[in-house]
Amino acid sequence: MNIIYAIDLLGTMVFAISGAMAANRHGIDVFGATFTGFVTAIGGGSLRDVFLNLRPVWVDDGNYLLAILVGVSISIFANRQLYKLARTLFLFDALGIGFFCVVGVQKSLAYDSSPIAAIIFGMFSAVMGGVIRDTLMNETPLIFRKEIYATACLSGAILYVLLGLLSVDPNLNAFISAAVIFIIRLLAVRFKLSLPVVGG
Amino acid sequence: MNIIYAIDLLGTMVFAISGAMAANRHGIDVFGATFTGFVTAIGGGSLRDVFLNLRPVWVDDGNYLLAILVGVSISIFANRQLYKLARTLFLFDALGIGFFCVVGVQKSLAYDSSPIAAIIFGMFSAVMGGVIRDTLMNETPLIFRKEIYATACLSGAILYVLLGLLSVDPNLNAFISAAVIFIIRLLAVRFKLSLPVVGG
Amino acid sequence: MNIIYAIDLLGTMVFAISGAMAANRHGIDVFGATFTGFVTAIGGGSLRDVFLNLRPVWVDDGNYLLAILVGVSISIFANRQLYKLARTLFLFDALGIGFFCVVGVQKSLAYDSSPIAAIIFGMFSAVMGGVIRDTLMNETPLIFRKEIYATACLSGAILYVLLGLLSVDPNLNAFISAAVIFIIRLLAVRFKLSLPVVGG
Repeated sequence: MNIIYAIDLLGTMVFAISGAMAANRHGIDVFGATFTGFVTAIGGGSLRDVFLNLRPVWVDDGNYLLAILVGVSISIFANRQLYKLARTLFLFDALGIGFFCVVGVQKSLAYDSSPIAAIIFGMFSAVMGGVIRDTLMNETPLIFRKEIYATACLSGAILYVLLGLLSVDPNLNAFISAAVIFIIRLLAVRFKLSLPVVGG
Repeated sequence: MNIIYAIDLLGTMVFAISGAMAANRHGIDVFGATFTGFVTAIGGGSLRDVFLNLRPVWVDDGNYLLAILVGVSISIFANRQLYKLARTLFLFDALGIGFFCVVGVQKSLAYDSSPIAAIIFGMFSAVMGGVIRDTLMNETPLIFRKEIYATACLSGAILYVLLGLLSVDPNLNAFISAAVIFIIRLLAVRFKLSLPVVGG
Repeated sequence: MNIIYAIDLLGTMVFAISGAMAANRHGIDVFGATFTGFVTAIGGGSLRDVFLNLRPVWVDDGNYLLAILVGVSISIFANRQLYKLARTLFLFDALGIGFFCVVGVQKSLAYDSSPIAAIIFGMFSAVMGGVIRDTLMNETPLIFRKEIYATACLSGAILYVLLGLLSVDPNLNAFISAAVIFIIRLLAVRFKLSLPVVGG
């Protein structure tokens, strides 16, 4: 349980970094960067929790907000170094979406959502923060433009629900499903895979 | 009750088609089209339910999500044919917003909102999906630009509340109010009616 | 208590005016102006309440919606005069964000949020309506672009929580914290203070 909590805080911090860096690229001030880091980090999980009629976890546990402040501070004080770490950040992001997606599916099922809604909430948990970030930056959301991203999450979420129906051990299931998301994401970027466009 | 449920699923599907078609027009991939179809279909009702402190219906009932998948599939596999059906889709949309608006007012009143809030929730149920769709597509929302649309919903919602205060039978009231929305919408498009702009 | 309620309604009206005026500037019709006035006025508080798992106050109390209608009507019928009152509106806005911010912190703490979340909710209550307004208008949110705005709220919210920890009388604390927000905002505009941009 402690490890899950630590990963959750770490993932929140990494998402905050990605949001703050996007704001920095747009010439937005440090408050705007903090704000964008915040919504990127908590957007997906909060939307899921609101739809499940729960209070988002960061409302009661201040540690998530501290993790975001740390992430934003890193993006401010180590802005140039972060660009050199692009590959490392990409790997963290791929790990992060796998983790957040699986945790999102688990939480949704624990609060009695239908399995198909749990799949959607898993994906939401991983990608909606980025959608809100891009909408705030006045860009077409990244998940609509680039290599397979949300689709990787969707695949992992479907896999988790299917393996759950087959009574696979939850911990093993979580590990496999998150790994599948990570691997699909790596392959997509390595081979520049993208989905077809209709009527294009 | 079964007919209402069937109409609700059908309306959800039609809204999903409209969202997915918008994404197709923007050259967005099939995942983005599915995502846009989803938020267009569930956006308005979900916002209403969240403000009423309820769980949106699709969280517990997977059939709504299946209806969306059917709608998105139609938009993908029958994309060209749909453009030829523009007039039919317009009629479905006008029927759909009337239906969703009235159902939205009824649900809000059933959960003890003030009558004026119920009017707003009725309109939200019908038009907010489209607002979110247009914001995601990075466009000024359609309801701000074209012929009377949300105003038709607003008129029908006000009528429903007024007739309810006069103790008109709920079923008759629902039929009349939805019909008024449908007719206003048809007249607005036929005669290119639009609202005035302030300071224009 | 009656004075707080009256100020709350007045502040809601002023925010509705600011939203409707933004829509008027964009050549949006009267419905769109009403809609934009509405989301600007209720956006921040509603988001806070949804995250606290409460029903927004306007769902049950129709007076808030009437205050919005009055504000929108003023923006429509006195559009030109309002531009001459720019300085007065600015002062009202600076007072309004101070008031909404402090009320937001108080409500969050009353519903057992963590102090750091209460600070964020205070700021949200004051500025999120404007963020939604600008996103709807398809602009980069104002809080990302101009002189210290949200930062003033953030400072006041932090001050309120700190003075609360020091057991300062809540009414005195509210007055001091709101006044600090008002003064920071005035100084920021007077001396064109803005936050630094990272990597600029």
